[in-house]
Formats: sequence, structure tokens, C-alpha cells
Amino acid sequence: MHLAAMVVKASIIGATGYAGAELVRLLNAHPQVELVGLTTQSYAGKAFWEVYPHLYGYVDLVCEEQDLPALVERSDVIFTALPHGHAMAVAREVVGRGKALVDLGADFRLHDPAVYQEWYKVEHTAAELLPQAVYGLPEIHRGKIRSARLVANPGCYPTSVILALAPLLKEGLIDTGSIIIDSKSGVSGAGRGLSLNTHYCEVNESIKAYGVAAHRHTPEIEQELSALAGREVLVSFTPHLTPMIRGILSTIYARLAGQKSTEEILALYREFYREEKFIRVLPAGMLPVTKMVAGSNHCDIGLVVDRRTGRVVIISAIDNLIKGAAGQAVQNMNIMFGLAEDTGLYGPGVYP
Amino acid sequence: MHLAAMVVKASIIGATGYAGAELVRLLNAHPQVELVGLTTQSYAGKAFWEVYPHLYGYVDLVCEEQDLPALVERSDVIFTALPHGHAMAVAREVVGRGKALVDLGADFRLHDPAVYQEWYKVEHTAAELLPQAVYGLPEIHRGKIRSARLVANPGCYPTSVILALAPLLKEGLIDTGSIIIDSKSGVSGAGRGLSLNTHYCEVNESIKAYGVAAHRHTPEIEQELSALAGREVLVSFTPHLTPMIRGILSTIYARLAGQKSTEEILALYREFYREEKFIRVLPAGMLPVTKMVAGSNHCDIGLVVDRRTGRVVIISAIDNLIKGAAGQAVQNMNIMFGLAEDTGLYGPGVYP
Amino acid sequence: MHLAAMVVKASIIGATGYAGAELVRLLNAHPQVELVGLTTQSYAGKAFWEVYPHLYGYVDLVCEEQDLPALVERSDVIFTALPHGHAMAVAREVVGRGKALVDLGADFRLHDPAVYQEWYKVEHTAAELLPQAVYGLPEIHRGKIRSARLVANPGCYPTSVILALAPLLKEGLIDTGSIIIDSKSGVSGAGRGLSLNTHYCEVNESIKAYGVAAHRHTPEIEQELSALAGREVLVSFTPHLTPMIRGILSTIYARLAGQKSTEEILALYREFYREEKFIRVLPAGMLPVTKMVAGSNHCDIGLVVDRRTGRVVIISAIDNLIKGAAGQAVQNMNIMFGLAEDTGLYGPGVYP
Amino acid sequence: MHLAAMVVKASIIGATGYAGAELVRLLNAHPQVELVGLTTQSYAGKAFWEVYPHLYGYVDLVCEEQDLPALVERSDVIFTALPHGHAMAVAREVVGRGKALVDLGADFRLHDPAVYQEWYKVEHTAAELLPQAVYGLPEIHRGKIRSARLVANPGCYPTSVILALAPLLKEGLIDTGSIIIDSKSGVSGAGRGLSLNTHYCEVNESIKAYGVAAHRHTPEIEQELSALAGREVLVSFTPHLTPMIRGILSTIYARLAGQKSTEEILALYREFYREEKFIRVLPAGMLPVTKMVAGSNHCDIGLVVDRRTGRVVIISAIDNLIKGAAGQAVQNMNIMFGLAEDTGLYGPGVYP
Repeated sequence: MHLAAMVVKASIIGATGYAGAELVRLLNAHPQVELVGLTTQSYAGKAFWEVYPHLYGYVDLVCEEQDLPALVERSDVIFTALPHGHAMAVAREVVGRGKALVDLGADFRLHDPAVYQEWYKVEHTAAELLPQAVYGLPEIHRGKIRSARLVANPGCYPTSVILALAPLLKEGLIDTGSIIIDSKSGVSGAGRGLSLNTHYCEVNESIKAYGVAAHRHTPEIEQELSALAGREVLVSFTPHLTPMIRGILSTIYARLAGQKSTEEILALYREFYREEKFIRVLPAGMLPVTKMVAGSNHCDIGLVVDRRTGRVVIISAIDNLIKGAAGQAVQNMNIMFGLAEDTGLYGPGVYP
Repeated sequence: MHLAAMVVKASIIGATGYAGAELVRLLNAHPQVELVGLTTQSYAGKAFWEVYPHLYGYVDLVCEEQDLPALVERSDVIFTALPHGHAMAVAREVVGRGKALVDLGADFRLHDPAVYQEWYKVEHTAAELLPQAVYGLPEIHRGKIRSARLVANPGCYPTSVILALAPLLKEGLIDTGSIIIDSKSGVSGAGRGLSLNTHYCEVNESIKAYGVAAHRHTPEIEQELSALAGREVLVSFTPHLTPMIRGILSTIYARLAGQKSTEEILALYREFYREEKFIRVLPAGMLPVTKMVAGSNHCDIGLVVDRRTGRVVIISAIDNLIKGAAGQAVQNMNIMFGLAEDTGLYGPGVYP
Repeated sequence: MHLAAMVVKASIIGATGYAGAELVRLLNAHPQVELVGLTTQSYAGKAFWEVYPHLYGYVDLVCEEQDLPALVERSDVIFTALPHGHAMAVAREVVGRGKALVDLGADFRLHDPAVYQEWYKVEHTAAELLPQAVYGLPEIHRGKIRSARLVANPGCYPTSVILALAPLLKEGLIDTGSIIIDSKSGVSGAGRGLSLNTHYCEVNESIKAYGVAAHRHTPEIEQELSALAGREVLVSFTPHLTPMIRGILSTIYARLAGQKSTEEILALYREFYREEKFIRVLPAGMLPVTKMVAGSNHCDIGLVVDRRTGRVVIISAIDNLIKGAAGQAVQNMNIMFGLAEDTGLYGPGVYP
Repeated sequence: MHLAAMVVKASIIGATGYAGAELVRLLNAHPQVELVGLTTQSYAGKAFWEVYPHLYGYVDLVCEEQDLPALVERSDVIFTALPHGHAMAVAREVVGRGKALVDLGADFRLHDPAVYQEWYKVEHTAAELLPQAVYGLPEIHRGKIRSARLVANPGCYPTSVILALAPLLKEGLIDTGSIIIDSKSGVSGAGRGLSLNTHYCEVNESIKAYGVAAHRHTPEIEQELSALAGREVLVSFTPHLTPMIRGILSTIYARLAGQKSTEEILALYREFYREEKFIRVLPAGMLPVTKMVAGSNHCDIGLVVDRRTGRVVIISAIDNLIKGAAGQAVQNMNIMFGLAEDTGLYGPGVYP
């Protein structure tokens, strides 16, 4: 009753990218959130609905230039949806003033600033905050998120991968040196920025791999898989740009340490995710399809054991902008503020 | 307070087509509806989520074969989403038992059974019910819907067209002999049935007209436009199959009876739809885009006066499965049962 | 015999846009053309296949910065694929040196420089060349093209519209005040430049109108239709951005001056285009589909007479980058140099 | 000179599927082929252009019911594009009459009839022909194809996989137990038949895996890889249905047996495919993209060595209907009849 009446004042820095816009939509519909500020570099002074007309009639806020101290002052929680390197200064300000931060970027996901610098090619200028940053994958780190002030919202690919592998690694059922991750992402993962990589005529009717053996989500995946396995895990990870707007499908291959059937491993997954509202372990014979999770905060997981080769193939599907970004950020906020975890997130997507 | 507690028991006949599945999704999330039955010809005995896995974990109902008397008995309202000709017998049963019917098909849209037979090439076997059937376009016929037991939910194209032209016709501002309607629909309008017309490789990367001068929505459009104009209106109507899943964009041309500016006509539209929650009259300079309404119950309307030719071009956009089908059906149900009209329908769509 | 041995030396200015790249592909495969120069603003110094890897192994030319006099010197024909306003200076140089120019832009399409300035908002600085510029629609102006040195290649929309209406206007069979043109274009018509209008996530799964009552192809269409009709023709023209890469479908409405059947008008079209290799007048009951012409230099035309409204609906389909740009430019070159008109252009497109 | 005058009389059995229609297009444009017969089950009596209107004006043949002896009699070569199990009887007839057969189906790809029966679940009723059947991958088996009468055209996936792995296996550079193949195919690979798997609304905006650990192309891949490696090879192969019409991208992972750099392995590939006209080994830093080969008979190959994990990632792209079906079939016919191998096949695809 008390909680029901609670209203969290939220602001978004970098609100006009796709993840930001999804945050606006979700937070605007959230029964216990009041949106109090939207900042953007490119559209300051414009009504948000001019930038995203689907919200015409729903969101009246005007995009602001960033006045960080004032914004933090009037907010309980700040969401940052910025290119890497830009959340560090914000984090210092937010944490310094005792407010909460959910960073949708990469700046606080890697515990080791040296690894960050190696993969992101910029110095980490707020390394002193890393020890208190919590990797915001609720199904794995819920306890820590609850008391965190600084949550690093996971990358879209890592979300789809870590959730798909956690039960197997936790139980030690696979050869940790054998993991191959082949992921396929919709174009919205590349953001609303302009580039030939998002030009309709270049992207439609085509699929390609990119960032082979070099994608920045690799160390993030390895950090979390290593923690789950209790030993260092290196993976081969190849993302692909797929001609669709939303969705990530990860197809993951690993050699089984012993003999298990599809049904046995599925049973383990169902048990592992028993209490989880957003993880759907599919029945045997049914495999994830990105369209089945689009518009929702779900992660669907299915798998097949291949006795011929001794491998298990695990497949997961998420909506990259929701469970892979804005939805998970709201889920983290709900946990941080003691709200029901699915508030504002419950429900299937729109199909077809 | 009393209404808040009300629960409407609803059933769907023909639940496994796309309009039916959207009804399931909307009614399942509707706070004052309990879904009590789903019938289907093809999937009887299967769990509904096996047919539509996006609803896995949300809808537990099993598809039933149709036992009409029993179904009607336990329902307050029946929705029919059937090919034309199949709702007549159902209607007789539902109305006979004093329950409410919202028919998403064509059987009760045309007041004149002779016109129905001419365009649909089948006899109307429930013509005695036509006088009590109300054309369920709430923005035009809300009063009659309130007391109706039998509502004929409008076709998707007619919804987009009638809403776009109503203010001009009502005010007598256009030459009623000059109306040209060029509509573009997504593929979901063709249903989930299998045909070369819905085969991905035939439809994608292509656009075509169909049913030129012969589409069955023509008499429905003409009936309603004539009623608004107070005189017989004939139109040229050309639908196009567009490579997208959802959405109808109607581009409508008419000769202005006198001189009016874009702003003057927009002012008239804003006034005409002042109280409407689902009609968004866009500011001058902004035009409807189907993606901006996808996933919502909105109809967006914009227009431009072309002084060079003396014509006005009105453009409307809807989601064909929501405002053009399932959403409007729920809106009608809300009105019939005295619920707030936007219950279960409020909110923007998911973008992009 | 003599002609068979002829080799035309061709250069392209602005080769790295989509129309330019199609020119490269077509001219590279043309048995009587040698490509001798490709200029571009953005990619100078790069091999052309680095910009367009589908040509890897076929085209070895390197993109050059523009050195106009030298380029013209070594070329027999220059193709310009530039934004409007940029072909004027080139034309003066090319014509001055007695070489041939095919301009794919808008600078020489409108006979009246005042109309050009009104619609394009820039001054025409080579107006003295307009009298010798020929509007390069071969099916209408073949004779003049044969002896022209300066050919203005038609716009993509005008090509689809003029070919669709020519027989009716020439025969005086329609009310020239009643013409409504509703066109749907693929995204490649917007070019390879970066803009939210070509961003995959903004464009896919959506259709919208643009340039309503204001598109720059309007005066071009009106100029040519007026010439065909022998009287001034004003039209309503609305282009739409359609989620596909290639293709334009134009749906055109006009009131018939007298009573004619679909078959009678189709017979007239077949007669009018009897000798044309790239115009396919479809049999009654068959209507153009953009996918059926994609990858080819065809213009398919079909039509339906609507007796109820006294209108005829004509539908045409082209590939906007071929018959609407590069293919037609090659067709014009073939005519100018006395080659068989379909050299390098013969053949259907790739389907599906 | 003699060869240039040769005309091969060709027939297609099963001409109205997508592979068949591509064969019609390619053979119709082939300078040394005369198409003499098209048979089909569903469209007998219809002109072929009524079934595929893009060929209107190009192909006048009428679809025939199958009269096998007469068809074989008047043909030099027969192409079969049929579901598995249906080419056996045809093969016996064709071979018995001393004519040539290129079978685009699976019936003669596997040398061992027991393996065929295990994976295809039907008996092989023409096992006596298997010893003379040649697996028609020209880049690997050109010598045998030259003298073959019965060529089994490879599956689309196997083509993309075998070509991508051949140099590494031949040189013994990878651990043959470590091969993981993750393939993504366009929807045309599923054929023109009707199914929810090809319904636009189900397929568009979505990606999914299918046939995990069970796809019938697995034994075909393993047979050929084993032959190349000189030892038994088992692979994990997962195909995915991708929202595009054409194209297969195969992403292949294998553990390197020793240390090699990307450049070293690329050099090996360039040497291996030095004389090949349809294999493009891309420069380091450039990776295959399906759109870059669409509409062509190319197989593009690129690769990256990942020193961190000791794996090589090889990526190949083909057009599934051309190099993966009809184009390769024509390539085989060219070889069998002593024509230049790229006759009728030379050229890049249409882009974008």
C-alpha cells in the first residue's frame, strides 16, 4: 500500500536514441514513475513527440540541454543512454549527490579498467566507482542490484548469451573451452545514428557478420561467464547484422562434459529460472523465434542436445531494445526502488 | 466504482486468425474482461499458445471446437472473426439468447441485403437482424453502439477512409463526385491463410494494386460517406498490397467546394474530433506515417490543400489489426458495456 | 557491321550514388562501351569495387577527382548523376567540346528556366543550352534524341507517369483536368546519402506520403502531359516512400471523356507501343507489380475501366534505378550513337 | 568455333518452383541453349509467363504435363527440380536413353543409399545409378563432371560450406572434430510452396533456427568434407531462416591445428581458387555480404583468425537460387557439354 503510492522521479540523459525512446515510452506508462527530464544533444528545444511522433498526445516533455546538477537534483534516478565514455562524469555527479544511476552504456560493465581500456580504446576516468557498480542482470545479480546505487545495464548481446548459458556453467556441464556464440541482431541495435550500416538499401535483403573476433561485447560476456563457471572462460563470438528492426537470436554451441538428454537439461533450466517472470524456458521441440519476444521484456530459451557430436545447441531470443536495453533498465530500477519487478513491463509483445 | 468491479465474460469464434489473435491479446490484458472461450476450425485441442507462442505464459485457454449454444450461454459477449457468410447463424443464436455480438466480418455492415449479395455473391440469410445491427465506428455512431446488441465492426479500409472524410462531408466542403481513395495495406490484412499473395518471396520488395474498381469495401465506404454527406456518394477506391506487416495508409483526393486553407480545414477536424481519444489530428506540416500508429488503436489524420488544383489531399493511418479490427472491436465492447472507452486500449505503439 | 565494331568511350560524373553505380554496372557489361572515367566527390582514390563490392573482379577503375576538361577530352559521352544545379557547368564544357551528355539530374528537363527556378529554388545558369536539350523519353521523343548532343534523362516518377498516360492524352480520351497520380517508390529513389528517411528502422514496416502538392517532379510531368494533350494539364501528384529497395508503382486516375471498355483502351495502348521493346502492355486482368520489372528496363502498364464512376485507372511499374534512371540513360546513349536501342539492356529482371 | 555453333536442347522437369524458374531465366538467356520443354504438376496448360510474369515477352513455352519418354527424346539434357524421391525414375529413363541429367534435388548426392534412407526416410529405388552419379561442385569435382551423364547438383547450404572449408581441409590445417557451421538462408530456399514458414507476416522481422542437429544437408556436407580431409568428419550444422528473399551466409568455426595468420590462410585460399571464375576470395578486412552476390553465380569467401581462441572463422556468401541451385546446374551443364564454363553465367548481380 505504501509502495503503491510511491512515485519515482526519473530523468533520461540521451533520450532521443532508440534505447532512450523506449525508456521514455516505458517510463511514461509506468504507474509509479514520473518523468521529470529528457536531455539530448541534437534536439534540445523540441517537444519529444516531434522527434518521436508515435508519442504525440502521450508525452509533453520538451528535450532539454543538459544541466547536470539541476537534473540530478530533481531526480531520484537517472538513466544514461550514451556512447561509451560519456557516462563517467554523470556517474560521479549522480553518485555524489546520493541519487541512483542506471547506465545503459558500457562504462561500468567491466570490473577491470584495464580490460575496458584495451577494448574501448579510451581511458576510464571514473575507475574509483567501479567497485560499487553492479552488473545489472537481475536473474543473476538481483541481490546486489537491490542495494546498488550504480547499475551497469548489460549489453544486448551479453544479455542473450549469459542467460542462455548460466545454468550449464553453474552446474559445470559443459567444456568451457568449447563455447561458440553466433548472434544475429536487428538493425535497431546500431542506433538511430546515420551510417551506411543502417541505410535501408544496404541492409535490407542482406545479412553479414561484423566485428568478427573483435566485438566489444566479448570481454563483457567472458567476465560474466567466467564468474558463473568459477574459472576463466574465453569464447568465440560473432555478431551478425540481420534485416529486421528488433531482436537478437543467439545460437550457442558447447561440448557437453558428460551425457545428458535435451529433456534433462531443459529440466535443469526450468528449475534454475523457476521464479523468473521474464525467462521463458520453452518445451522440448519448440525453439525461440525473435518475433515471439519482440515488444516484450522476455528472454526465451530453447535447446537441443546433438548426440552425434556430443554438443548442446542453446538458442535464446530477446528484444534488443527491451530486455536488451530499456526494459532491463526499468527492471533494474524496479528492483533498486523496491517495486514489483515487473511493474510497467508485464505483458507479451505485439504479434505479428 | 461499481463498474470498476464489473467483469465481462467474452468468447471469440475464429480466434486463430490474426484479428482473432489480437483480440485474445487485448482481451487477455483487459482489466474488466475474462476470456471464457476460444473456438477455431483448424487447431481445436491445441493450447492457444501453441498456435501463437508469443502468448506462452499468458494465455492458458485451449482452442475448442464450436459448441455454439454452450459458448453463448457462458459468455456475455461474443466476438466473431470469420470469413463472410459465417457470422449469420451465430448472430441469430447470440441475439436470440440476449447476449452481445461484435462481428469483425462483413455480414452486418451493409444495411441493404441486396447490396451485400451483389458484392459478396452469397445470400444474406439473417436479413431480419440487419435493422438492429449498428455500424461500429464509435467516432460516428457512438450513441447507437451504446444500446446495440449486434455491432458490425467496420472493415479496415473503411475505418481509415470514413474517419478521414467525415468532417469534410458533414460540412459539405467537397465535391462528393470527386473522391478518389488510394489505400496501401500491410500483408496481415490478407490474414494468416496461405496463398501466393502472402508468400514472403512474392510480397517482399514489391507493391501492387488489387481489386481495382471491384473491392468489397467499396459499398461499405459509400454507404457511410453517403450517410455523412446526406446524398449518394460514389468513390474510386484502389487498395494496394504493401510489403509491411501492419498498417493502412489511405491517401484521399477530393475537389474543394470552395476555397479553404490547410489550417482552416485542420481547425475543423480538430473541432470535429475534439473529444476523441483515438483520433490524432496532426499539426500542419506533419503527415501520418503507418509506423507511428502501429501497435495502437489510433487513427492519425493529416491533410494538405493544393491551391494549384483546388483539391484537398487527406491522409490517414491506422494499424489494420487494431483500429482496423480487434482494437475497434474492444472499443465497441467497452461502449456497449458502459466501460471507459479506452480501457485496455490506451497507449502508443512500440516504435521503431 | 561497321556499328558492331564501334566502341563508345563513356565517363560518369557522380558515379558513386545508386544511379551512378547502376550506370557502371550496365556500361561495364555493354558490348560497345568502354568505361574511361568515374568521378566522385567522396571516394576519390578508392577502387570503385571498394565502394561497391558486388563489382569486385569486374570493374578495376579507380574513382577520380573531377578534372573536367581532361575527362571530356577522352570521352565520347559523359553521364552526369548529380544533385540539381551541378550539371550546368558540366553541360557547357561537354557541349562546347562537341561531346555528348546524358544528364540524369533535373537541370535540363524543364524547357522554361522560370519554372525551374520556381520549383528548384536556384537560378538556371546555363539557360542558353535549354533549347537544344532533349527530354530523353525514347518512346515519346526518339526522333529528337537521335540527333541530340544534350539529353535530359527523365525523372523516375515522370517516366512511370508519362508512359502510362501518353496514349490516352494523345487520343484525347480523358478529361485533362481530372488526373490524379498516386505513386509509390522504393527507398533507393532517395539515394545513398544518409538521412532518417533512408534509415532502415524508420523506413521498414512503414509507408508514408511526402512532398504532397509540392514535389519537384510535378512540373516535369505537367510539361510532358501538356505537350501530349496539346493543352495545359495540371495534375495532383503524391509520391509515397514504400518499404522496398527498388520500384515505382504509379496508380493514375482520370475521368473518361466518353465510354470505352478496358479492352478497347488496352488495344489502343498495344497499338501505341507496338514497336517498343521496353513497354509491356499487360493483358486484361493482369496488373503491373513492381517485382516483375525489378532489375529490368521495362515499363509494365495495365488498366481497368470503372463503369460505375466513369473513370479509368491506369497502373504502371518500373525499376526506378533502371528505366527510371540508368537504364533509360543507356537507352538514350544507344539512340544517340546509332546502336541497337536495347544493347546492354535486353532481358528480364531477377525474380523473386 | 565449332563449339560456338553448338546448341544444347534442354528441358526442365519441375519448372515452376523457384529453382526451376531461375533455370528457365538462365537457360533462356544462354546463347547455346534452346529450351524445348517445361513440365510442372500444378500449372500444365498455362503459359510459363502466366506463372512468372517477369518473363512476359521472353519465354513463350507452355507448361506441359510430363510425358517423360517424349521429353527425353527431344532433349540433350534434362534438369530435374523436384522434391526428393522424385528424380530416381527420371534418372533411369534419361540415363537409359543416353541423355544427360542434372538433378537439383537430393536423390543422387549421397554415395551411400543407406545414409540417404536414414536421413530422407525413403528407400532409394535407383541405387544402381549412384556409382556413376557425380557430385556437381565444379570447383572440387570438375574432372569427373566433364565426363558424367548424371550430375547431382549440390544443396545450397553444402555449396556454401564445402567451398568455404575445402582449402583448410585439403591442407590439414584444422582440427576436423571442431567444425561448427552456422548458416543463414533467405526464404526462397523454402520454395514457392505454401506454408506458415513462408508466410510474410510470420517470417518478416524475425529470425529463427530450424532443423537443429537434424537438417538433411548434414550428411551431404560430411560426405564431402570427409573426402577432402581424408578422414571422417562430423559437423554441427544449424540453418536459420532469415528475413530476406535470397542468399546464404555461412559462418564457420574451426580450431586451427597450428598457428597461421589471417593473411597466410587467405593466401592459401587465393592459390587454391586461383583459376576459379566464380569464387572471390576477399581481401583481408573485407567479409562476404549476401547482397554482394545476390543475382550472381559467385561464392564470396572471407576469413579471420582469432589468435585469442586459436580458431579461424570462415564466412561464405552465395545466392542460394543461383550458385546454390540453378546457376550451378548451368555451370555443370556447360562443363558436361564442353562449353565455356561461365557461358550464360558471367556477371555481377544487381545492387542494391
